[in-house]
Amino acid sequence: MALELTILGFNSALPTANSHPSAQLLNIEERYFLIDCGEGTQVQLRRAKAKFNKINTIFISHLHGDHVFGLIGFLSSLQLLGRKTPVTIHGPKGIKEFIEVQLRLSGAYHGYPIIFNELEGNQSQIIFEDDKVRVSTIPLDHRIYTNGYLFVEKEKLRRLNTDAINEFPEIEICDYHNLKKGKDFVLSSGKVIPNEYLTFDGARSFSYAYCSDTRYKPDIIPIIKNVDLLYHESTFLHELKELADFTGHSTSLEAAQIAKEANAKQLILGHFSNRYSDYRVLLDEAKTVFEHTILPQNLMKIKLK
Amino acid sequence: MALELTILGFNSALPTANSHPSAQLLNIEERYFLIDCGEGTQVQLRRAKAKFNKINTIFISHLHGDHVFGLIGFLSSLQLLGRKTPVTIHGPKGIKEFIEVQLRLSGAYHGYPIIFNELEGNQSQIIFEDDKVRVSTIPLDHRIYTNGYLFVEKEKLRRLNTDAINEFPEIEICDYHNLKKGKDFVLSSGKVIPNEYLTFDGARSFSYAYCSDTRYKPDIIPIIKNVDLLYHESTFLHELKELADFTGHSTSLEAAQIAKEANAKQLILGHFSNRYSDYRVLLDEAKTVFEHTILPQNLMKIKLK
Repeated sequence: MALELTILGFNSALPTANSHPSAQLLNIEERYFLIDCGEGTQVQLRRAKAKFNKINTIFISHLHGDHVFGLIGFLSSLQLLGRKTPVTIHGPKGIKEFIEVQLRLSGAYHGYPIIFNELEGNQSQIIFEDDKVRVSTIPLDHRIYTNGYLFVEKEKLRRLNTDAINEFPEIEICDYHNLKKGKDFVLSSGKVIPNEYLTFDGARSFSYAYCSDTRYKPDIIPIIKNVDLLYHESTFLHELKELADFTGHSTSLEAAQIAKEANAKQLILGHFSNRYSDYRVLLDEAKTVFEHTILPQNLMKIKLK
Repeated sequence: MALELTILGFNSALPTANSHPSAQLLNIEERYFLIDCGEGTQVQLRRAKAKFNKINTIFISHLHGDHVFGLIGFLSSLQLLGRKTPVTIHGPKGIKEFIEVQLRLSGAYHGYPIIFNELEGNQSQIIFEDDKVRVSTIPLDHRIYTNGYLFVEKEKLRRLNTDAINEFPEIEICDYHNLKKGKDFVLSSGKVIPNEYLTFDGARSFSYAYCSDTRYKPDIIPIIKNVDLLYHESTFLHELKELADFTGHSTSLEAAQIAKEANAKQLILGHFSNRYSDYRVLLDEAKTVFEHTILPQNLMKIKLK
């Protein structure tokens, strides 16, 4: 499995017994990323049977409470669970002070290192990269400084066509890695065997974009172009467009417009105002523009493979 | 009803789906006091059907996360609910910075006034007093600066004995208040009618003491003497006395010893280590010393009247 997203919370503002503020867990190539962390996220992680100690990297979009008030509790629990390895937190400038003041005053922190990557730029930038995954910021337009995040699986190795390879005794096991990376093979005779003859296409690479909270911002379309899965906030119906602009949020129609123009494969809505008791009105509105739209559900898992 | 205590959470350390960190709601003479506020307390308040806007005063024992990480979320929700009237927070020195840094960085606070009463003394002091209720600190002995709180109903007005009063036409309605306050009545003849003849005893006044977290500290006994209801933490069984001392906690036996020596009417245990899956072992141990001991339960209400 390449990419699995678990919805831990998708409501705006007030947490209740049955609605949880923004938080998601992304498993991408066995990297476990926590995306936003409203109050109660650690309990939602338990309900999702997530392993706390596998989470090494946290991405916080902005410092409004419904996206960050659960972070200190999660970090404290990691310490109580005996964690020793570092945790890296990517988030807006100020997040270091936000967390460190609480750690200092609660006298609770003696354990593992916390590495803060405080963001303040307004251009998309790569903030995480290893051999399999790349994460970039998606600068958003909210009441305070906010970033979404784009998670991309790097292109995967090609798969060996063993039947074809067996035709060439000269090709040895030590050559396989270059073949997987797409290189042609040159026989001792000087003849070139094209890579396409010796390999199949690799597994497909997937991408996920998290966009919350933001006004309608078409500037992000080039950044998220062709994304496989797009989470885009849709706090209001379009009849409340004025309120959406005023509060720095998007309407369901606007979320769908972004998905359509970005040529996303699938859109998942979220961050609903608590004025809506039945979210299907938001879904219906989005579908008038972008058919492949779904609603989130508590602890829903979305797998791309 | 004079005094009602709602248990919102009674576990130590890690919150889970079914165990909540320390928080209580006390209704004493229709004053609603929130006592400690671990993560998720606002959701527990909703489950208890408590009215957020009736809570004007909050008492925080100490700044360990399981007693305070839910406070910022609760305060933010009050703002979202449109609160305008002040909230007073009594707690250890540092709590102002703890909350204000988060409010500032989350850019979320524009609403009602928050008044901080930062405590740092090591002697019991009165920190709240009005016509019906008095609250004092109970200095405790934990790893960081910690106070328990003693909540006392002031002596209540005497009740009029209308049959007796009717024997004396000279007594008018405007005299009733003095009678309720215990004054004798002097007839125009100069004859004194003793108050006890004209009134009955007033309703009984109750008291509640909250003691968490603390090592065994017999110094608190004079402060809580004869208390009606005592909540005393009992993190461990007495077989772990050494660990209790090291971590700044009490054993079940010690909690019972405090209750007995203070001549409390009833003891409620709490703040249990998550090593205990069945709390009855803690109850049984306490009962060997103090019979009138009970275990807390999620959202349990205890009424004294």
